[in-house]
Amino acid sequence: MARPTPLSGFPEWLPDGRIVEQHVLDTLRRVFELHGFAGIETRAVEPLDQLLRKGETSKEVYVLRRLQEEPQDDAAAGSAAKGDKQLGLHFDLTVPFARYVLENAGHLAFPFKRYQIQKVWRGERPQDGRFREFTQADVDVVGAGELPYHYEVELPLVMAEALGALRDIGVPEVRVLVNNRRVAEGFYRGLGIDAVDDVLRQIDKLDKVGPEKVAALLESEAGTTPEQAQACLALAGISGSDSGVVDRVRALAAEHGVESELLETGLGELGALIEAASVRAPGVVVADLKIARGLDYYTGSVYETVLVGHEQLGSICSGGRYDTLASDGANTYPGVGLSIGVSRLVSRLLSAGLVRATRSVPSAVVVAVTSEETRDASDAVAHALRARGVPVEVAPAAAKFGKQIRYADRRGIPFVWFPGRVEDDGTRSPDQVKDIRSGEQVDADAATWEPPAEDRFPRVVPAEG
Amino acid sequence: MARPTPLSGFPEWLPDGRIVEQHVLDTLRRVFELHGFAGIETRAVEPLDQLLRKGETSKEVYVLRRLQEEPQDDAAAGSAAKGDKQLGLHFDLTVPFARYVLENAGHLAFPFKRYQIQKVWRGERPQDGRFREFTQADVDVVGAGELPYHYEVELPLVMAEALGALRDIGVPEVRVLVNNRRVAEGFYRGLGIDAVDDVLRQIDKLDKVGPEKVAALLESEAGTTPEQAQACLALAGISGSDSGVVDRVRALAAEHGVESELLETGLGELGALIEAASVRAPGVVVADLKIARGLDYYTGSVYETVLVGHEQLGSICSGGRYDTLASDGANTYPGVGLSIGVSRLVSRLLSAGLVRATRSVPSAVVVAVTSEETRDASDAVAHALRARGVPVEVAPAAAKFGKQIRYADRRGIPFVWFPGRVEDDGTRSPDQVKDIRSGEQVDADAATWEPPAEDRFPRVVPAEG
Repeated sequence: MARPTPLSGFPEWLPDGRIVEQHVLDTLRRVFELHGFAGIETRAVEPLDQLLRKGETSKEVYVLRRLQEEPQDDAAAGSAAKGDKQLGLHFDLTVPFARYVLENAGHLAFPFKRYQIQKVWRGERPQDGRFREFTQADVDVVGAGELPYHYEVELPLVMAEALGALRDIGVPEVRVLVNNRRVAEGFYRGLGIDAVDDVLRQIDKLDKVGPEKVAALLESEAGTTPEQAQACLALAGISGSDSGVVDRVRALAAEHGVESELLETGLGELGALIEAASVRAPGVVVADLKIARGLDYYTGSVYETVLVGHEQLGSICSGGRYDTLASDGANTYPGVGLSIGVSRLVSRLLSAGLVRATRSVPSAVVVAVTSEETRDASDAVAHALRARGVPVEVAPAAAKFGKQIRYADRRGIPFVWFPGRVEDDGTRSPDQVKDIRSGEQVDADAATWEPPAEDRFPRVVPAEG
Repeated sequence: MARPTPLSGFPEWLPDGRIVEQHVLDTLRRVFELHGFAGIETRAVEPLDQLLRKGETSKEVYVLRRLQEEPQDDAAAGSAAKGDKQLGLHFDLTVPFARYVLENAGHLAFPFKRYQIQKVWRGERPQDGRFREFTQADVDVVGAGELPYHYEVELPLVMAEALGALRDIGVPEVRVLVNNRRVAEGFYRGLGIDAVDDVLRQIDKLDKVGPEKVAALLESEAGTTPEQAQACLALAGISGSDSGVVDRVRALAAEHGVESELLETGLGELGALIEAASVRAPGVVVADLKIARGLDYYTGSVYETVLVGHEQLGSICSGGRYDTLASDGANTYPGVGLSIGVSRLVSRLLSAGLVRATRSVPSAVVVAVTSEETRDASDAVAHALRARGVPVEVAPAAAKFGKQIRYADRRGIPFVWFPGRVEDDGTRSPDQVKDIRSGEQVDADAATWEPPAEDRFPRVVPAEG
């Protein structure tokens, strides 16, 4: 077999990169659990017809076929008739979570807070840090029938705390940008615009094409007057991390004669979020009224998250409030949630050289082997160290000690342990342990020796450190 | 949307079941890391032609197709011409690991010890505890060019230790059954049998059809004489957990005039494994010379693992030694490894009611909310507790305290925290915390209070406990 080459869009990490990713995943999980979110996993597949309910994502779905299956009529793949038998890989964790909630509603306690960390797959062309297989970390809370607004405040703060817990390994500061569907819709309707989603679609292009082009598009594509277009742009231009934002929107509304209950509701919500965030995570949450992505399906708050200094990477954590996550005959389940693109984040951390693992293997110690006949003595040392939680491996061969030290060195393992020699009179000289970084070698007892705390497990640290 | 129903073969757990699974995964990971195995993950897909290199598994593969892709000629799906473009989901973790080793050989240090815990997919008919999607936990060590025998002793002991670490949650005792390809092949060849794999295939049926039927099959299908068949059955009848096994094989060989260097090599290896195991894990490893599955591709030791009292579940952890895990032009990579069927194990633990989680959510405490106006006071209590690592959530609504206590009770959360009341003179009465199991309620300070250690996180315990 020739050396295989990587598949574009399917990232994999070397062992030291995986240590970084695992640290990120462990950190997220710890924060989610401290906030009471229960972990679940769903199967990788969903019926194709469920995956295709939002028409736009159809291009992204990987469809599964058993190799020995009867050939399917491909043209009919998406049709209801055949579609209900076909399975596809999930492209996010929201569709499967909605299905899980409906399927298990009788066994869940609502409001139900869950986190879910899994791979998702999208068959799109890999480019610009977009992957075909990647890991997402989602938190959502879902209610039965109703869900109080305060969860729209809580969830972005949980994510800010989770990402903030990665600051000490060198992850840049994050900004959570928030907007509220009710503010935009209330303002537009108050201006006399009915084509709310058309306006949002054009506003979403602001960063890409600039305000002049968007003004023209608002008139040509969303049917606004020039004055309405300017008012929409003025609203999109408002941002800030204190209640001044609410005042400025109110002033703008007054200036344009906008009166809207929906706007007032939205401003009340947005103001509460900004205020709570300024206490619990000062400077992290910023109202940004040009955020329009997702406002076509989110019904209240909407969130995007950027790494400060890496804004061109795009949002690494997005989400929002949806009034109908799922619905069966009896109940509607509203929810609010956010999703971290873990692979995108880890990929950037590694490729930009922001973080590194202190070694590529778990072992803190290599126990040297004096001769294959005494390997059991080395195994016994390893066993004694492991019994007290020290990760350790035994050298692969009774080679010269210099070679055994190089075995440790190549893996970044800091300590090599030399079992004592059994003398002719049956006594055994003391074991010794060598810190191969300093060269210091001291007598040691496997029943009591501890590595320094910072050496026990591989750590993930800023790459400069 | 009507209530969806589960997909057969794609298991999912409720939150408390997931806590059990997560505990199993965490425990396995901890033991693997204590033994110095580095964690890796590989992508879920491999080129179809690589998955189909062993012809027998072709029926199990799920093939992927992008929904918008050009329709493929299904008849040619397996052909080399189109196959190199097609992707399938991996059906084990060995094929992707072999590819990973070849792809990254220049960046890995050999011998390379890795563990890998991931989902795999098989398109087979779901039945008898067989799943279409399930989690495997693999450990392997792979060398470049050579791999010392002692790893064939080490790896089953690592797995025995990992499974043994689950004893305290109620996982039954395990037995690792071992055999050695060299023993069987040496013995058969010494008897004058050349069709070694044909004999192994019949011996593998012993448990199913019994010795008389197998004797007949050995003659009809493997071309042995009646005497050879009886000798093969006699070998398969030998088992035991001490060196007496080796003596009995030697006696049987002498009885049949068998002389074989290969047999002697195999017996030396098997004896060393049994001896080391009897010291490091007494009673766990049992030589069982009828183990034949996998002996067609394993080249030395072969392992199966059963839960004592649940033998009919089949092997939950299997593996062996392969002289050629992977090979490129320059190097051959021999390896030895085992794989735990985590989903099969967890499914049995849950369905047989052997284990349970002490609660269904991470939270140890619910902070009650006196009124929505003072929710920030409850948030502050939660923040203070979390800062010291106590999982906590805030009540969803300022309902009557009885209802807030029921919220905790329904989730098995042991403590409810009542923030102190702010009196008219501005002073605040002390906070109180109630153990809702005993009803005991005491003054408490969020800056210092700790739950009992056994209540901090959900635990997984024997279901009787």
